[in-house]
Amino acid sequence: MKEPLQNDRLLRALLRQPVDRTPAWLMRQAGRYLPEYRATRTRAGSFLTLCQTPELACEVTLQPLERFPLDAAILFSDILTIPDAMGLGLSFSEGEGPRFARPVRSSADIARLDAPDPEKELRYVMDAVRLTRRELAGRVPLIGFAGSPWTLATYMVEGGSSKDFIRVKGLLYDQPKLLHQLLEVTARAVTAYLNAQTAAGAQALMVFDTWGGILAPRAYREFSLDYMARIVAGLKREAEQRRIPVILFTKGGGAWLEDLAATGCDALGVDWTVDLGEARRRVGARVALQGNLDPAVLAAGPDGIRSQTARVFADFGPGDGHVFNLGHGIQPWTDPEHVRVLVEAAREASVPYHSLAAV
Amino acid sequence: MKEPLQNDRLLRALLRQPVDRTPAWLMRQAGRYLPEYRATRTRAGSFLTLCQTPELACEVTLQPLERFPLDAAILFSDILTIPDAMGLGLSFSEGEGPRFARPVRSSADIARLDAPDPEKELRYVMDAVRLTRRELAGRVPLIGFAGSPWTLATYMVEGGSSKDFIRVKGLLYDQPKLLHQLLEVTARAVTAYLNAQTAAGAQALMVFDTWGGILAPRAYREFSLDYMARIVAGLKREAEQRRIPVILFTKGGGAWLEDLAATGCDALGVDWTVDLGEARRRVGARVALQGNLDPAVLAAGPDGIRSQTARVFADFGPGDGHVFNLGHGIQPWTDPEHVRVLVEAAREASVPYHSLAAV
Repeated sequence: MKEPLQNDRLLRALLRQPVDRTPAWLMRQAGRYLPEYRATRTRAGSFLTLCQTPELACEVTLQPLERFPLDAAILFSDILTIPDAMGLGLSFSEGEGPRFARPVRSSADIARLDAPDPEKELRYVMDAVRLTRRELAGRVPLIGFAGSPWTLATYMVEGGSSKDFIRVKGLLYDQPKLLHQLLEVTARAVTAYLNAQTAAGAQALMVFDTWGGILAPRAYREFSLDYMARIVAGLKREAEQRRIPVILFTKGGGAWLEDLAATGCDALGVDWTVDLGEARRRVGARVALQGNLDPAVLAAGPDGIRSQTARVFADFGPGDGHVFNLGHGIQPWTDPEHVRVLVEAAREASVPYHSLAAV
Repeated sequence: MKEPLQNDRLLRALLRQPVDRTPAWLMRQAGRYLPEYRATRTRAGSFLTLCQTPELACEVTLQPLERFPLDAAILFSDILTIPDAMGLGLSFSEGEGPRFARPVRSSADIARLDAPDPEKELRYVMDAVRLTRRELAGRVPLIGFAGSPWTLATYMVEGGSSKDFIRVKGLLYDQPKLLHQLLEVTARAVTAYLNAQTAAGAQALMVFDTWGGILAPRAYREFSLDYMARIVAGLKREAEQRRIPVILFTKGGGAWLEDLAATGCDALGVDWTVDLGEARRRVGARVALQGNLDPAVLAAGPDGIRSQTARVFADFGPGDGHVFNLGHGIQPWTDPEHVRVLVEAAREASVPYHSLAAV
């Protein structure tokens, strides 16, 4: 039996329903900037073991909630679990980021790929979702997530992180059909993976399109947006008698918010290069917005953090449909005490923008 | 005596005057992708010596023109010559990029800065301009350039390249007045430097705002755009009885083209994340546009290069006010033979979009 949700601000805000204050969570809120995370990570031995051990993944998911009054938990995992489960052989080397032992380079490599069964090859993720839901005991909702097909494809083709994305862009411009084939199987895998997370207990879903912003507009629509739209269309949107809100986030995708809003998702992540008020005017009543403080603001002192946080609410303006967040993940250099200032500032500053009395 | 200009397509297009075909040049057209550049670079011993030796800088400036039928030369130099002349102690280490021995960190560091005299501390640049003009002998115009004050400030404060720009953003959010003081002296230095390049023979000017796109909209206007507008206002706009066109380029600044166009510049550089037709509708008749092929297209084969190049002209549409270019510099991995395909494709594909008969 799942316990009733005590704080549903996030789910309400994502569906543009009234809330007493703007809910707040932070991308990568569980991560290297927290000493308790680094301790668990050391205990795990490797980043991958941390992701693949449900008890440890659950532990680090909950760590930021012990410290800060956040309105959501987000599953601790990595977007590359899917290509790993597809057989590409994922590893992480310190300081160098992810590596695939068997990157996807030829049409034979692509033909060989199949969408993994989430409850088999990715069972450790589903177990982490189930365990975390149990441990959360209804305090706040749990967000599940996946990478966008385009973003996953960049790693699968390049074999890891990239600066210029030469290989995957070479494929895009030279053999678009082959890239579509790769994106198609990846989109199927992501859809099944997200639906399995919902079945396991995720209460909202987010698709991270970290690298959509490196594409030209036409290429973005054809190779990234389109596949996210397919995923949205394939998601089960209800569980436990509640709607499961879906958030799409293309970093550097500020020019394409209207297109993203038209996919049928519930909310858009917005990075800090976009004015949130302008973004709101552009998307109108179609979607909620999540964001968008520059994570570098956390390098400033308390006064700077408070004034810049207040700006985000002023930019969005009065009314519902806003989830406070950073415009990108918390960076490892961040002082946790600065995060505390931020989370407390966000709780206070948003109240005047909502007409609903505090519960 | 300076010889008359035989190919003025670039200057005409930047001023939105009729041309028989769209002029083409490529950002970083002189650079590491060319074996003859690497040979000169080896001969020079270091990148800095290459920049500081007028004969060698002139030699590499001319190299791409010997290979490809380009419509402009751009001075071979580096945007960091100005902070170096301000006493910050520039060096380049292989693979690591630029380093300043004395980065700017305190108010005392900033108070100590003064705009260098271009004909003294930066005489080697002016000598390179004069020599290159002589060697060009009127074949094509010579473009001079500088970094934007914000972009230079990122290097001056961080002490080199950066990933997160924590230090300079910390300054921005904590001590905005101090950052303004730094930007003010840097803007004065850039203005004097560009005017000196014009006096030495540069026939068009470009300001590279490589890092404006990492800023939030309000911060961009206050800390980058404003200082570029001051520079434009301070430039001598005529030399040798010709107007000196000024191009502003904020990489990742697609959202702010209207603001950039309002500075009084003649043309905007546009990166590949913006649709050139949409950019043209937005800026109207105020400025010409320069761009915007994704440099990663050069990783594709000849067919891909040709079709993507044709797209750029189709996106811009019929009429004048377009300079063909990449949306960012040529990358070192680029095959020079692919650049040849590109330059030839650009020459051919643009003709149908112009009504002026070939001269």
